[in-house]
Amino acid sequence: MQQLRLLHGGDYNPEQWLDRPDILAQDIELMKKAHVNTVTLGVFSWSTLEPQEGVFELDWLADIIHNLYANGIYTILATPSAARPAWMAHKYPEVRRVRADRVRELYNRRQNYCYTSPVYREKVRIIDQKLAQRFGNDPAVLLWHISNEMSGDCHCELCQAAFRRWLKARYNSLEALNKAWKARFWSHDYTAWEQIESPAPQGENAVQGLALDWKRFVSDRHIDFLKFERDTVKEFAPVAKFTVNMMYRFDGIDYFKMSKEIDVASWDNYPTWHKPSETVEETALDTALMHDLYYSMKGRPFLLMESSPSFTNWQPISKQKRPGIAELAALQTVAHGSDSVLYFQWRASRGAEEKLHGAVIGHDGREDARPFRETVGVGQKLEVLSEIATVCRTKQAAIVHDWENKWALEGSCGPRNAGMGYWDELKLHYNALAREGIAVEFVNQESDLTGYGLVVVPMVYLLTDAFAQKLCDFAQNGGTVVVTYWTGVVDESDLCRLGDTPYGLTDLLGLRRTEIDGMYDGETCRCTPMDDSTLPETQASVLCEVASLNDTDPATPLSVYAEDYYVNCPAVAVHSYGEGRAYYLASRFDEAFYRAFYRAAVKEVGLTPAWPEALPDGVLAARRGTFVFVQNCNEHPVEVGGVALNRYGTAVWKNGEQVL
Amino acid sequence: MQQLRLLHGGDYNPEQWLDRPDILAQDIELMKKAHVNTVTLGVFSWSTLEPQEGVFELDWLADIIHNLYANGIYTILATPSAARPAWMAHKYPEVRRVRADRVRELYNRRQNYCYTSPVYREKVRIIDQKLAQRFGNDPAVLLWHISNEMSGDCHCELCQAAFRRWLKARYNSLEALNKAWKARFWSHDYTAWEQIESPAPQGENAVQGLALDWKRFVSDRHIDFLKFERDTVKEFAPVAKFTVNMMYRFDGIDYFKMSKEIDVASWDNYPTWHKPSETVEETALDTALMHDLYYSMKGRPFLLMESSPSFTNWQPISKQKRPGIAELAALQTVAHGSDSVLYFQWRASRGAEEKLHGAVIGHDGREDARPFRETVGVGQKLEVLSEIATVCRTKQAAIVHDWENKWALEGSCGPRNAGMGYWDELKLHYNALAREGIAVEFVNQESDLTGYGLVVVPMVYLLTDAFAQKLCDFAQNGGTVVVTYWTGVVDESDLCRLGDTPYGLTDLLGLRRTEIDGMYDGETCRCTPMDDSTLPETQASVLCEVASLNDTDPATPLSVYAEDYYVNCPAVAVHSYGEGRAYYLASRFDEAFYRAFYRAAVKEVGLTPAWPEALPDGVLAARRGTFVFVQNCNEHPVEVGGVALNRYGTAVWKNGEQVL
Amino acid sequence: MQQLRLLHGGDYNPEQWLDRPDILAQDIELMKKAHVNTVTLGVFSWSTLEPQEGVFELDWLADIIHNLYANGIYTILATPSAARPAWMAHKYPEVRRVRADRVRELYNRRQNYCYTSPVYREKVRIIDQKLAQRFGNDPAVLLWHISNEMSGDCHCELCQAAFRRWLKARYNSLEALNKAWKARFWSHDYTAWEQIESPAPQGENAVQGLALDWKRFVSDRHIDFLKFERDTVKEFAPVAKFTVNMMYRFDGIDYFKMSKEIDVASWDNYPTWHKPSETVEETALDTALMHDLYYSMKGRPFLLMESSPSFTNWQPISKQKRPGIAELAALQTVAHGSDSVLYFQWRASRGAEEKLHGAVIGHDGREDARPFRETVGVGQKLEVLSEIATVCRTKQAAIVHDWENKWALEGSCGPRNAGMGYWDELKLHYNALAREGIAVEFVNQESDLTGYGLVVVPMVYLLTDAFAQKLCDFAQNGGTVVVTYWTGVVDESDLCRLGDTPYGLTDLLGLRRTEIDGMYDGETCRCTPMDDSTLPETQASVLCEVASLNDTDPATPLSVYAEDYYVNCPAVAVHSYGEGRAYYLASRFDEAFYRAFYRAAVKEVGLTPAWPEALPDGVLAARRGTFVFVQNCNEHPVEVGGVALNRYGTAVWKNGEQVL
Repeated sequence: MQQLRLLHGGDYNPEQWLDRPDILAQDIELMKKAHVNTVTLGVFSWSTLEPQEGVFELDWLADIIHNLYANGIYTILATPSAARPAWMAHKYPEVRRVRADRVRELYNRRQNYCYTSPVYREKVRIIDQKLAQRFGNDPAVLLWHISNEMSGDCHCELCQAAFRRWLKARYNSLEALNKAWKARFWSHDYTAWEQIESPAPQGENAVQGLALDWKRFVSDRHIDFLKFERDTVKEFAPVAKFTVNMMYRFDGIDYFKMSKEIDVASWDNYPTWHKPSETVEETALDTALMHDLYYSMKGRPFLLMESSPSFTNWQPISKQKRPGIAELAALQTVAHGSDSVLYFQWRASRGAEEKLHGAVIGHDGREDARPFRETVGVGQKLEVLSEIATVCRTKQAAIVHDWENKWALEGSCGPRNAGMGYWDELKLHYNALAREGIAVEFVNQESDLTGYGLVVVPMVYLLTDAFAQKLCDFAQNGGTVVVTYWTGVVDESDLCRLGDTPYGLTDLLGLRRTEIDGMYDGETCRCTPMDDSTLPETQASVLCEVASLNDTDPATPLSVYAEDYYVNCPAVAVHSYGEGRAYYLASRFDEAFYRAFYRAAVKEVGLTPAWPEALPDGVLAARRGTFVFVQNCNEHPVEVGGVALNRYGTAVWKNGEQVL
Repeated sequence: MQQLRLLHGGDYNPEQWLDRPDILAQDIELMKKAHVNTVTLGVFSWSTLEPQEGVFELDWLADIIHNLYANGIYTILATPSAARPAWMAHKYPEVRRVRADRVRELYNRRQNYCYTSPVYREKVRIIDQKLAQRFGNDPAVLLWHISNEMSGDCHCELCQAAFRRWLKARYNSLEALNKAWKARFWSHDYTAWEQIESPAPQGENAVQGLALDWKRFVSDRHIDFLKFERDTVKEFAPVAKFTVNMMYRFDGIDYFKMSKEIDVASWDNYPTWHKPSETVEETALDTALMHDLYYSMKGRPFLLMESSPSFTNWQPISKQKRPGIAELAALQTVAHGSDSVLYFQWRASRGAEEKLHGAVIGHDGREDARPFRETVGVGQKLEVLSEIATVCRTKQAAIVHDWENKWALEGSCGPRNAGMGYWDELKLHYNALAREGIAVEFVNQESDLTGYGLVVVPMVYLLTDAFAQKLCDFAQNGGTVVVTYWTGVVDESDLCRLGDTPYGLTDLLGLRRTEIDGMYDGETCRCTPMDDSTLPETQASVLCEVASLNDTDPATPLSVYAEDYYVNCPAVAVHSYGEGRAYYLASRFDEAFYRAFYRAAVKEVGLTPAWPEALPDGVLAARRGTFVFVQNCNEHPVEVGGVALNRYGTAVWKNGEQVL
Repeated sequence: MQQLRLLHGGDYNPEQWLDRPDILAQDIELMKKAHVNTVTLGVFSWSTLEPQEGVFELDWLADIIHNLYANGIYTILATPSAARPAWMAHKYPEVRRVRADRVRELYNRRQNYCYTSPVYREKVRIIDQKLAQRFGNDPAVLLWHISNEMSGDCHCELCQAAFRRWLKARYNSLEALNKAWKARFWSHDYTAWEQIESPAPQGENAVQGLALDWKRFVSDRHIDFLKFERDTVKEFAPVAKFTVNMMYRFDGIDYFKMSKEIDVASWDNYPTWHKPSETVEETALDTALMHDLYYSMKGRPFLLMESSPSFTNWQPISKQKRPGIAELAALQTVAHGSDSVLYFQWRASRGAEEKLHGAVIGHDGREDARPFRETVGVGQKLEVLSEIATVCRTKQAAIVHDWENKWALEGSCGPRNAGMGYWDELKLHYNALAREGIAVEFVNQESDLTGYGLVVVPMVYLLTDAFAQKLCDFAQNGGTVVVTYWTGVVDESDLCRLGDTPYGLTDLLGLRRTEIDGMYDGETCRCTPMDDSTLPETQASVLCEVASLNDTDPATPLSVYAEDYYVNCPAVAVHSYGEGRAYYLASRFDEAFYRAFYRAAVKEVGLTPAWPEALPDGVLAARRGTFVFVQNCNEHPVEVGGVALNRYGTAVWKNGEQVL
């Protein structure tokens, strides 16, 4: 994929308007006005490309692609596998998924195919080949977009059989499987592979090892399907580049694993701006976390594949982006490592599920509408910033976000079935670091920690032996590790560790956990800092861990519980280990705590903030290479570095010189 | 149907007491004491009329009917199709419905038959014929009551086939259908009729055109079933009159369409008096709206078919009607155009689902119980008012309530999936007009607007070309139109209009909509009146539309938003059009706004309130012909026109002379 | 069962650790340290006992039992029927239950067998015989524990047929059945037994008599299964004693009826200590109610079969028991009539559903962990109290808790479908009596009332003729009866009584009910005491009954409603009857009311409190034989009878002499 500039454009559905050449002509005209240089085609075009089984109509698509190209607009070409035609669902029931309750779906919606079905793979193979043969070497096609927002699972008999094959490959023997799942509990030992079925509301749902393996299997199935499509295209398009569009907080697929199979990561970003529970800055930080997560997939620039220029139609309440927010969001995307600002969608559909979703061009087709005017403005600014394309960010801090851990953690019955607030925990660490202007990446337990100064280990309930050792080595070599409560509880089979916990980290931390107390929503325990600590007084919540200091080489408490029967037990502790050190956070604290904690930790580790001075509240800074972006998330103007920033305004410096 | 007087009585179930002649005898005695002149028989009598397949026992019913008649009591005779016997459900599975999730029901409850099943129609035909042959010309039978509270839907294969036939008749070709449903979105083009299935949780539920057509089809099926039963009876009872009992806010059937097939409209009224969220006046207004809606079905007096004399048993909390409420409700019913006050039920059942539902005679059979004493009182007053029977109301204002619009509006995903508050919107307009003492009728988009002075167009999201034109013509000829936000968005296929909106009304209104902002629950935007306006300051909520005034012949803003990015955009505007004018309400406002708005509008239009002077708070007035009813919904006494009205008291004037 | 002392120990699952002899050895060592004398084995061991169909491996169990016995530890031996092996579920689908929605379960969880399946009974018979043959006369086996926490229901065809047989036995004829169910309502008369099916969401759910009979049938099925297992074991173990473990507020089985089939009652107690809505005293009282209920099953000491030494893992939030709570709970159990303190579980499982549930020995295997240390302390105190074993409590007051009434009451649609708060009502009466130090037992309508001084009849909606007569006789002979609202509404078929109500009690009470008003949550009606009454002013809620005093021999009002249309109607009344008297409570009042009411009533009846003086708030006293327990539920210390009680501390006197 040639990447000469920042991509600007988005999803385009001309198959909905083939009977309206006037509208297709207006599209080209308006795209040029809006500085659009790239569109995504074909995401839901299967019924137009293959209106009857074996009858293919690709000419219309070729015409569109070439007309766009003639007007300077590249195409990201999608395979259409996310939404199959009605004739296929009707003729071949096996292509339709079976739900967890074992009911086969009727024809419906999208992202609903059985990824195991040989019939479906064959039908996808044929249409993908047709596309690859026709467009595989077309200079207009910049990138291949495999399917769309892969998700969900299928419980059909074909998938049950595939699951059993997957289990055999993982465990070799039923003995090993029974042991890994502790199947003997409640007498569930399996004595034949055929006895094993996927989790179901009316079936097995108490064997947590089975549930975890099912999630692994489903993730692997999606990745296998992705590889199948990619390789099908590659046969006719050997130099083609591939992406797949990922989603906000999606946990159905291990995206770290999936990302190994693609050339560039991309994701679809639909923040709920202006919701009553969040400030604009908070929404921006929530989005930034996701940008940084998807940047981390390949450790290099990603694409923002979809975003709304205005509003959505699927949230409980959909608000208009206030004037300026579209630009703020677009430039933040670039600041955090995106090489594109792409919209869903170019022109609003007249009917069906998303007809009231925002678009660059609305139903009235007007150029004077705000979404269009704001898109023009974004397009202009992206051209100014074009040389940032392909520039990477500097490694500073890493936070562990491991899909397998999240699956195990959320699948377990424990001290807080009412909700562990996994993302809330990550946000507390992320936001504190991001507000300091530190570049954050995300890692999983397979990741290399080299190059980071600080690694945060938040609620890593499922902690592998290897990663525990990696953390110790990281500290040994001078790194700083921050370990929270609810870490190191189980092994990779979700079996509780026998022995002291956080398992594998007690030497690193200089303490061991002795009790875990679940806290009700709203229930807190006051924590007071030790005399020599600069930490603020805070409130513990969610879970309060009680720890006992090691007899030899114990940790140093920085803050202790001031209430309840665990009064004076450490709430926060630090421990030197080799060249580095490890912090232990025994509970979840309030936001101010993390600000203070990380401000000190960052300084101690020697990480350089994006902006050298303290920023006004609600102003965020991010560095990408030699570029520094400062964004005002406030409704009021602020001044930063002598530059006035209006409401939602952004300034960009390159090597210290303001370029925007 | 001979209508000599106001009907008083209600549902009577002697088949439950055939082994208790003493109780049947007491029934006659007490009915006479209570001034009962009409009962409804046979609603759930099928298992007694046809205890085994093909074995008919009608003599007991004849005896009951004739004994009642001998005592001066008429019968409304129901066909028993709403609840079939167990033997039929057991022997013929096809008579049982299939749910949307494609599970066939077991034998259960009532209103649960497949209206398409040939077997069910045949069984209904036979029993209806037997009844018609026996009672079709019986002078004791005043009216035929077809089935009961028709509702629900069936998704069996017979219904799927019928749906496909219905679609073929509507669209002729799949091309037309695909276009109307915008099926190409998500690649759902249908290429064979057999591919089409009704909406299902596990099936098609994103094609909103399909969902809308399914609702139309189900409504048509019910109406077809009604016609089938009506014509079956009519064959043997050529002069028979027919009704069907409708329900509160029921939206499963287009009652306007259904009402064309019956002689008199009727409905079942079960308000939740005394709930914490409502005053008695508010509950009364909520009820009045429904009375006026069902009056509007045929534009002439209707029947109140069911009501509780005391309490219900199916609400979360069932309270006793306070003393006086039964009379208040009964006389309000008559004031708004009913020719009857009928109860469910005469005598409480001993067992099953509704055994704890209120009745005129309770389980203790006592005459000194309050429900019986109050029923006697109502009976006496109805006799005093008897000459009001058949008297119509005067046309003044109309509010559009169109079932197809409601289906489309609520089936759509848009700015407020958390709820659009359709009925709340209607109530705000209705209550303001009703509190002014203006007679309100309801119309749909097929209705003739002649005779009204004012037409309210609240949230008419699906607005047909023809009706838009009708509204323009209405204003052209001197009428006043009030158009709210969320109007004129889609056409009759639920496809978004291409072009300026409110589609078809921009000239009438002198403006066009440019943006729509969803508001969270509790979120508001202050609106301030223009200097020369008499409107009060108010708060906008739910949806805030932003409008742009037409370049030529623009509207005049009366009130503008005072906050947010749409500050100074019109919240309320007026525009002269031909001999009349049109108002535009860009959002939902508070109750006081509508009171002020309509007080002025009514005066401007020249409509005459039922009562010439301002009434005390909580007192409502309604005119029916030469009768004027004034009702005190307060707990404290009031004086109106020199007459003292006790708590919940009613006074009635005829031609200015007090008759009650 | 030989009962020489108080049992201490609990559920032990060595089959999970057969590959870890080091752990099994540590178990014995630690049990002895913890004063454990009894463990429960085999509850979920089937897959280890019969790893393949017909292949039995009992030697490991024999080794465990005998090794324990050699170390002074007895075994309670469970039959394994609560959780069958996977091979069985796979090979014989009929052993798996069919849900109410007619979906057959897949292999899943536990307590999930079809109790009607001949195949399942045969498989259970074989394994139970094997166990009985091997251990039936083993001196190490103290007691047989049949299955585990029996619950749930099955709707398969085998069960449908069994239900029809059960109905034929109950009713003899369909005529009688139709009458009892008032099937004629909604035309549901059955004309063949085959037409009858169990209640279903998609089926019959409005015939309340059917729903009630289904609950009776399911309860009888469980009891039949229990008898089948018991008799299977008894064949080889003629002197064996049996128990079955019951559950908190479980209403799926009539435990009174079930308890006739066992030798000793037992239950599993998992209070939610430290929840925000309850004080420790309130949680203790809630637990005490259950202890007293299960004591009442056989009117003699029961066993606490399961309890957590620390925390659970299945509540929304699981908190640690604060230090001292484990002891408080253990001693309270004994005070209320238990001869055991047994835990679930001895050692925590490594995996599956309950891996994070508390245990005496946690995953770290440490002796210095708090649960182990506290268990040692409890073991020591139980040895001090050992001679209390088998001692009964004195009869004082009885509260009616009748499963059939509860089923009917909660299955009915009436004035408060939003919830009648059955247990809340019972708790108000129970807590007031328990705080007075009165021993409370529970009775059903079959029970003998001899020996009690006071009988409370709370919400006995379904009241049999015989029990109404029994209550009258009880009062006639000098007893005091307390009857609340919502009593005497229906007969044993859930048919409303014809005639005055509370049916059968109007002479006893000196009044009849005329109206029932449902109250919204939070809605209240003020009640004021009569001038000569010592009752406090209070607030009525939930339901307000309106009563009319009898013309002859009327009741005496003690308190009247002070608001609404029933102002001055009796809220509380008393009536002398024979040698005794009856109180009528027309509504639910606040807690303070019941304290005052029962303090006076207890004095009037002449019942002796456990402690002679008033106790400080939060301190509870209970008498068992010559032992008196006083427990401080407060966080602060108190002094009682000259003895200082620490936070959560307990003192015990025997014949007035402090023994603990």
